Amino acid sequence: MRALIFDKTLMYVEDYEKPVLKTGEALIKTTMAGICNTDEEITKGYMGYKGVLGHEFTGIVEDVFNDEDKAWIGKRVVGEINAGCKSCSWCSKELERHCPNRGTLGIWQKEGCFSDYFTLPVSNLLEIPDNVSDEEAVFIEPLAAAYEILEQVHILPTDKVALLGDGKLGLSIALVLGALNIDLTHIGKHPNKLDISASAGNKTLNLTDIKGLEQSFDIVIEATGSVGGFETSINLTKPRGTLVLKSTIAAQEGLNLAPVVINEINVVGSRCGQFTPVIPLLQKGKLDVKPLITKVLPFEQGVEGFELNREKGTLKVILKF
Amino acid sequence: MRALIFDKTLMYVEDYEKPVLKTGEALIKTTMAGICNTDEEITKGYMGYKGVLGHEFTGIVEDVFNDEDKAWIGKRVVGEINAGCKSCSWCSKELERHCPNRGTLGIWQKEGCFSDYFTLPVSNLLEIPDNVSDEEAVFIEPLAAAYEILEQVHILPTDKVALLGDGKLGLSIALVLGALNIDLTHIGKHPNKLDISASAGNKTLNLTDIKGLEQSFDIVIEATGSVGGFETSINLTKPRGTLVLKSTIAAQEGLNLAPVVINEINVVGSRCGQFTPVIPLLQKGKLDVKPLITKVLPFEQGVEGFELNREKGTLKVILKF
Repeated sequence: MRALIFDKTLMYVEDYEKPVLKTGEALIKTTMAGICNTDEEITKGYMGYKGVLGHEFTGIVEDVFNDEDKAWIGKRVVGEINAGCKSCSWCSKELERHCPNRGTLGIWQKEGCFSDYFTLPVSNLLEIPDNVSDEEAVFIEPLAAAYEILEQVHILPTDKVALLGDGKLGLSIALVLGALNIDLTHIGKHPNKLDISASAGNKTLNLTDIKGLEQSFDIVIEATGSVGGFETSINLTKPRGTLVLKSTIAAQEGLNLAPVVINEINVVGSRCGQFTPVIPLLQKGKLDVKPLITKVLPFEQGVEGFELNREKGTLKVILKF
Repeated sequence: MRALIFDKTLMYVEDYEKPVLKTGEALIKTTMAGICNTDEEITKGYMGYKGVLGHEFTGIVEDVFNDEDKAWIGKRVVGEINAGCKSCSWCSKELERHCPNRGTLGIWQKEGCFSDYFTLPVSNLLEIPDNVSDEEAVFIEPLAAAYEILEQVHILPTDKVALLGDGKLGLSIALVLGALNIDLTHIGKHPNKLDISASAGNKTLNLTDIKGLEQSFDIVIEATGSVGGFETSINLTKPRGTLVLKSTIAAQEGLNLAPVVINEINVVGSRCGQFTPVIPLLQKGKLDVKPLITKVLPFEQGVEGFELNREKGTLKVILKF
């Protein structure tokens, strides 16, 4: 089968071995897949992962291992990307995404979805409603990561929230918080991207215009992935406020955490989220993801897709199978 | 009057001007004062502070500005170190320590207690009970900073807590959590200091023996002040656990925050605390601070006190007036 793999370098191959089903799993035929910046980070060494990349997908269930799962065959699905051991305390709390023995699709110990076929436990799958297109459904994973903030942080009706960063991640968060009518000020550098956020109902502000807003937000969400963005986020957060760290930051230069202590800020690391709450919002047409699509490319142009993803101004690149 | 001041360099002077009372304030005659590592940091440029140093004290109220406060005269007192504006939303919530216009004794816009006399608002003062000695009471400020953790974080009865760092700050925290019978493992480098923590009822562990404890603590308290200590703390924290950042850290080298996001750790910055809950513990003899005293020096030897404070193995240096 065809696959886009990373092993020292990013490669498109046509003779990759088709995965073999294990107990509890479904074999999924990929129909669409989205390129995430995490995929790009992996090609720079993140997580030390080697193998088939990709974790944002839509697909059709082609086969299942267990007879009792046969009803899934032929269904159009998305799937949560963390497959836990099913026996630890995390898995028992529906927190498979923190299971110490988990595989994470295309990121950690589990081959990803940038291939004609891949596997996931049936228990990870959710059926895509008829009125949600593949182009929309392929965004469920990044939108769930945005929704995760709501699972971790209690945003009060009176809270003023700021969001830093207007890339793919920032805009996914902007769409979800906009749909929930949270009082959000979205701060970025790119007027055309901030316009997407404004259309979702958010206030927008250029990064050059934030003077006077120091320590004025109850909750600040960092989605720039840069040390500078993290430091700006600290400055915008009220004393005793919450800073949601949504992007993985490795400070090469200096990073001063003293203001976190002095202002007793609560820094909450936030990663993947549950798919369940996102689907009704897409079904009801409350999340307009189309402006986030920069290009849909045929799967065999995957390597070019990664190149396009690296270009300034690119939002989501989707690979079509 | 005599004063220990910092202005480019640390100086002991005998002709410093006695402070003038303002409305609501008390004039306090210092009896004892403790040297804190924050004082040392200020002499290296922290907060850009210049003037009389010192914020840990015991004293006698010598005078008050307002007639209605006259009952305070002659009382033996300690005092909360943040003096707020009394009119902002922070002050109205008894969170003067976050008032944007606050002065902080010997740290920020308010002359400190390393002098024969200094002033504080009467509302900041607490009377020292008769059965609590000055040597004990001078620890109320650092013990309150330890107690602050309990105000910010809900420690469940079943939570496993780790504490990193066996300096003054770490040991103050160890005494308070020990008195509260919290399940605490205190990790440090100095057997003689860890013995103090063990006497307070805590489990202790040398830093070289922590292998196998990765991701095993619900709550980890960082009190080393080093980037290495912060990274070890991250490693010890369970996914979705809480890391209390008690010491101000400025990373000069690289600092990787990715594990905070991946494991969705909650990093809580924590600074000064309220004095009220500490005093009954001292009154009841539940906090044995004596082993924390390295030396009591006469005030005029304050500069030598700072030198001693810098030496390895030194815990609290107290200046006696």
